[in-house]
Order: sequence, then structure tokens, then C-alpha cells
Amino acid sequence: MKDTITVTFQETGNVTSPSGFQASGVAAAIKKPGRLDMALIYSEKPCNAAAVYTTNKVQAAPLTVTREHIAAGALRAVVINAGNANACTGEQGLENARTMATKAGIALGLKAQEVAVSSTGVIGQQMPMERIVAGIEKLSQSLSNEGYQAAEAIMTTDLVPKTGKVELSIGEQKITIGAMAKGSGMIHPNMATMLAFYTTDAKISKPLLEKAMKKATKVSYNMISVDGDTSTNDMALILANGTSLAPAIEAEGPLYDAFEKGLIELSVHLAKAIARDGEGATKLVGVHVKGAKTEEDAQKAARTVISSSLFKSAIFGADANWGRILCAIGYSGADFDPSTVDIYLGDIQTARDGEALDFSEEKAVSILSQREVTITADLKNGQAEARAWGCDLTYEYVKINADYRT
Amino acid sequence: MKDTITVTFQETGNVTSPSGFQASGVAAAIKKPGRLDMALIYSEKPCNAAAVYTTNKVQAAPLTVTREHIAAGALRAVVINAGNANACTGEQGLENARTMATKAGIALGLKAQEVAVSSTGVIGQQMPMERIVAGIEKLSQSLSNEGYQAAEAIMTTDLVPKTGKVELSIGEQKITIGAMAKGSGMIHPNMATMLAFYTTDAKISKPLLEKAMKKATKVSYNMISVDGDTSTNDMALILANGTSLAPAIEAEGPLYDAFEKGLIELSVHLAKAIARDGEGATKLVGVHVKGAKTEEDAQKAARTVISSSLFKSAIFGADANWGRILCAIGYSGADFDPSTVDIYLGDIQTARDGEALDFSEEKAVSILSQREVTITADLKNGQAEARAWGCDLTYEYVKINADYRT
Repeated sequence: MKDTITVTFQETGNVTSPSGFQASGVAAAIKKPGRLDMALIYSEKPCNAAAVYTTNKVQAAPLTVTREHIAAGALRAVVINAGNANACTGEQGLENARTMATKAGIALGLKAQEVAVSSTGVIGQQMPMERIVAGIEKLSQSLSNEGYQAAEAIMTTDLVPKTGKVELSIGEQKITIGAMAKGSGMIHPNMATMLAFYTTDAKISKPLLEKAMKKATKVSYNMISVDGDTSTNDMALILANGTSLAPAIEAEGPLYDAFEKGLIELSVHLAKAIARDGEGATKLVGVHVKGAKTEEDAQKAARTVISSSLFKSAIFGADANWGRILCAIGYSGADFDPSTVDIYLGDIQTARDGEALDFSEEKAVSILSQREVTITADLKNGQAEARAWGCDLTYEYVKINADYRT
Repeated sequence: MKDTITVTFQETGNVTSPSGFQASGVAAAIKKPGRLDMALIYSEKPCNAAAVYTTNKVQAAPLTVTREHIAAGALRAVVINAGNANACTGEQGLENARTMATKAGIALGLKAQEVAVSSTGVIGQQMPMERIVAGIEKLSQSLSNEGYQAAEAIMTTDLVPKTGKVELSIGEQKITIGAMAKGSGMIHPNMATMLAFYTTDAKISKPLLEKAMKKATKVSYNMISVDGDTSTNDMALILANGTSLAPAIEAEGPLYDAFEKGLIELSVHLAKAIARDGEGATKLVGVHVKGAKTEEDAQKAARTVISSSLFKSAIFGADANWGRILCAIGYSGADFDPSTVDIYLGDIQTARDGEALDFSEEKAVSILSQREVTITADLKNGQAEARAWGCDLTYEYVKINADYRT
């Protein structure tokens, strides 16, 4: 590997950006009539696939089917619906998830085993299979290189579609990774109700694909929280069809490192987009914990702060209540000494060695009133650090989740 | 022990109900001027004492002082203030907490070591010691057998004072346990921003007093959640002055069992009162998990459901979304099989063996619209059970915690 490798992230771009992938999104009346609610990703060539799933003990039927199909070999397509999670639906639900793969396979000329399945929406209701099957038919007929309708179709309470791509340049050759994701409620560390789908034209072995996905998930989706709830349906899945003319990634080294770096950058972008678009959110909040003894300590502390309802309410109200930050680190389980902690709201230091400093409350309110707020806690206890992202807790969050008719 | 022992709980009654205790509550301008914000409990005789503290790594100064004084021997008094937590206040804060004990000791003719100290309120600000010292002087001059002003003085965002008593009748003799508590925000398993003070005239050894307090805390304060935050200041403390003529409790047996039973009943009453009065709450929500493999599994499951923002929002909106209950049990860490779980909203069964049942949504909405709602999950996986209590998540919770001026 003599060539310089550059990694470039772009917000424009989606699952159809890498060569050899098509996608579609249609309205199948699973959500309210007229809204896009089913999506399909299709690859011309067989793909190595890897996925990360929710840690919830209650796992929706599509996860079982997708696990089986990835274990069985190469994938060619993913069929996705919003509006119904197909969770807590028993044997009938499992049969319905299998039918989704079978029907997509028939429509595309593939074996059922080559199709992954994913669902998001209401828990505990059986899927409206007649409309699902009709939707699959429509999806297979509207595949294109456009890709944005698919990103819109997987949204539930999301306000905006979330997509992006990363390009790796290796001399004359190029590897592209494209992605789409959805989030919004029930978003919490260890995979929340979030779905993320990646496509890449990289020629990469399944073990390295798995390794890169695990690494990227750990520092992105596992570091965001909207409400502390972990869903039954989360899945982040990548398809690699190997159509790029760039060298194959079959061992660790500079090219694998660049691929992992690109995947992380894309994942962090999507994770932050999910946090920013959290149910009812008015602000994106970043928490940077540094000076921790271990990365695990830093992650625990950052995730606990971003998950605290008291902290999130204070951010909504632009309240410079830094004590709630130290308090949350205190019950995070992280190893630290409260009497060495420094805390910053944006660039204003509000506490040194665990005690209050004089600071301009006016300036603090101005910082906390911005659309993006970053909090830093320096534990001064080591070299490790971590970043987590979330949003404020607002009246609108309560409203969205109190009304079962939304 | 031949006599029958009866245990009787009464809502009327407080820390002055047992013989030999007095209390007072005064306005010392620590909160808004005019509001009661300092309290004192005083015992005529030296007391065996036991306490349970927050598990937060950040511990407020008064906890350090109270620990030391309980370890040193008998207590005679507890001095408490609301409006300032004396947390994250460093050496100066520790000195201030010691001064509170010293000054109360001087006013009451006691050694500083005989006085416990407790604070609740804002984190990260030094105590207004001039007003605190003046308040202690007033407290010592207004001791009485009334007791309700003390219960009002320890309130922060609480809307109502929380008190109660339990009487044990042993033949002609009587043991009384009285208590007061405060809660409201930052209330979560493992002791939240809650303070509870118990007095009893029982003659009971320190180890048995400790044992009973730990047991009572585990099934009461550790099983309530308002917002998932664990405070820096929590404390539940009991003083036993031995003035009752009933037999001494110096070994386990029927009398100890009755004492423990009474303490549990009183603690569960206060814990439920704290949950009902959670910040912004409109409803008391009880979660009963039964059929668990172990008590720990049952507790994990019950506490996770009661802590879920999604579940709490659904209860606020009277939304019969039982899937969120099963989902929360799924990420609780409890050992169970999703396909055997039955779920009930009040007396309506909404799921059997992890799958939806047909039920009247109208009836469900009517049940969820009441001021007290009980959810039952039967895991059908064993004999253990647990109960947890909490409240709904409302616009008002967000409002209270978004505004630093409240």
C-alpha cells in the first residue's frame, strides 16, 4: 500500500452512492395513508454482510430472520417497513417476517435467504401483511439510483431523513460507503430504536466488516441518548458488494484503518443527526469527558450525563446548573475523584476541582441558548476520553409520547 | 414473648409521636424569605442511631459529618436545612457542616458529636452560614411536641409534607416509630434526593436498628423513581431513645420482626407519598412484577419499568401502550423469557405470553386516567415478586426543572 489514502465525508449521498446499489421507498399505508413507509435496498452482486443488534432481551421478529440470513451467507437486499415493529408478535410475527423476505426474494429473483428484514413502529400488533406484500411489489418496481425516498420511508417520528456518504481515495481508485438511518424516540446506549443501513462497494472480508461495524457502533449509536429507553428493533447493517476496483481489504493495515475511520465518521454523523432530531428536541447536546482513567470510565460518565432528565431539562431552560453534571457523573459508576473535576459549559469554566467558580451567568445563558451546546468535564484522573450526544428534554417530548394517536 | 404483637400504621403522627422527642421548624431565609427551611429533632435521652446514605460517588458534606458522628456513639439531635445542599463545596463546605453540628450542640447543651446534620437544595453553592447559625438558635428555642413544622421545613419542590407513625402493641406496652420525609425531584433507586428521619422510643441495639433500616430502605426508597437521577444528599436516619417500657429488642425474634414490619410499612407509606408528589406528577403509578426467578430479577424489572420515560409519558396520556412495559423489562437485565410474560393494566389483561390480547381500549383509558394506576407483569418464571412506585412524566416536570429560578 504505497498510495496515500484520503477519507472524505459528505452529507449528500446515501445508500445508492456506492456502485452497484439501488433503492426505493413507497407508501404502503402502514403508517398514515400517503406517507412513505416501506424501503428496499438492492445490490446487483452478492454482498458480505454484518450487523449489530439491540441488547434488549425482547427482540423483534425481523432481527431473528436477519441474523439467520446473514449467518447463511451472502445478502442481496434489505426490505424495511416503518409503522409496525413486528415485536411481541410471537410465532405469527416470525412467520410474517419470513414472508417479507420470501416475497421480496420472489419480486427480485433472489432466494429468501439473500434478503434481510427490518421493521420499526408500534410494538405488539400483527403486521398488515396484505399491504406489506403489495408494498414489496411496488418497491421492487421502483428501484433507482436516487435513494432519498428510501431514507424518508424508514422515518417514524423523525422530522428529517438522515443520510451521508464517505469516500476513500486510494491513488486512482475509490471506495464509497453510503448510509441512511432513523431514530427519534427510545434512543439510548446499546442500540436504541434506531435503524442504520450501510452499503459499500468495498471488497472486504466478513470478519473485517464485522469488526469495523462493532467499532463504529461503539463510538456512535452507543453514545447517544434521547430518553434512556432501549428498543426491541434496533439494527445497524452493512452490505459490501465488492464492485470497487480498489484493492481488497482482507487483512488489517492502512486500508482497513481508512475504511474503519470512514465508517466511524459516517456513523458519528448519523448518530449526531439522530440526537439532534430526538423527539421534541430543540438542541443538540454534546458531552465530552476527558482525563478519565479508562475509556470505559469516560464512556460511562458521558452517557450518564447525556441521559439525565434533570440535566436535559436544565439544558432546555438554558440553566447553568453545572452541579447536575457532577451529580450525574457521581452515579455513573465511573472511577473518579469528585474533588479534581473541572466543568465547562461551552468555553466557560464553571467548576474547578469539584467546586464552583465565579462565572458570568449571562454568558452561560447565551451559550446554553444556542442550537448546539457542548459540555466538557475533565476528571483529571488519566488520559482517556469519550464523547456522547443527546438532546434537551422538552414539553414536546412529553406530548409526542403521551398521545397514542400520533 | 407470649403477648400478641399488633402493628398499626397511622398517617397522623410524626417524629414527635414517640416519647421523649421534640422538634421544630423555622424560616431562616435559606429558601425564599418566609418559607420554613430549617428543622431540628431533639431527644431527651441519648439515642442509638443508624442511617442509609446515597450511593452517589459525590457525597455532600453533611453526609460525611453524620457518618462520623454515628460512628462515634449516641446521638441526641438532627439539624436539617432545605434550600442549599452543601454539595460540591469542598473543605469550606465540610467546615460549614461541622459548624452546624457545633452550633446546634451549643444551643442544646450537647457535644457536636451528638448532632447529625442533613441538607437539601441547590448543589455547588456555599451555605449562607450567618442565616444558618441564626436559624439554629431559633430552632432550639421553638422545640415542641407538635412536629409538623419540621416536616414542612425540609420540603423543597414537595407540594405536601410527608409524615406518619407506626405503633407496636405488646400486651400493655407500646413502641412507637414516627417519621417525616421529603422527596420530589432527583428521585431514583439507591436513595434519591430524599431525606427521611425516623424516631422511636424502642430500646433496640444498634446492629438491629441498622438491619431494620437497610431492609426497610430496600423495599421502599430504593423502589421508587421520579426521574432516574440519584442525588448527592440522600439520607434515611433513625434515632432510638429507648424510653419505651416495652421489652428491649436485643436479638432477632418476634419483637424484632414486628419492629421491622412496622418500619417497612411506614417506609413504604412515605416512599409512595414521595412518588405521588414527584415533580409535576399527576398520578401515582405502581408496578408489580411477579413470577420472577429471584427477588433481584423482580426488583430490576419493576424499577426499570417505573423509570422509563416512554412508559411514564404513556401513563400521563392514558395510553394503553403495554409494549413499552415489556420492552422496558427487556432491557432491565432481569432473567426472563419474553414469550411467557402476561401484562395487566389495572385488572385488564392486555398481553398473554408476550403477545397482544384483544381488550377494551375505552376501559383501559378509564383505568389509566385514575389518580392511582397499578401495572402488573407476571413473568411466569418463578415465585419471586417486587413492587416499585413512581409517577407520570408531564409538561410540569420539564417546566420545574428547566427554570433555575424556581
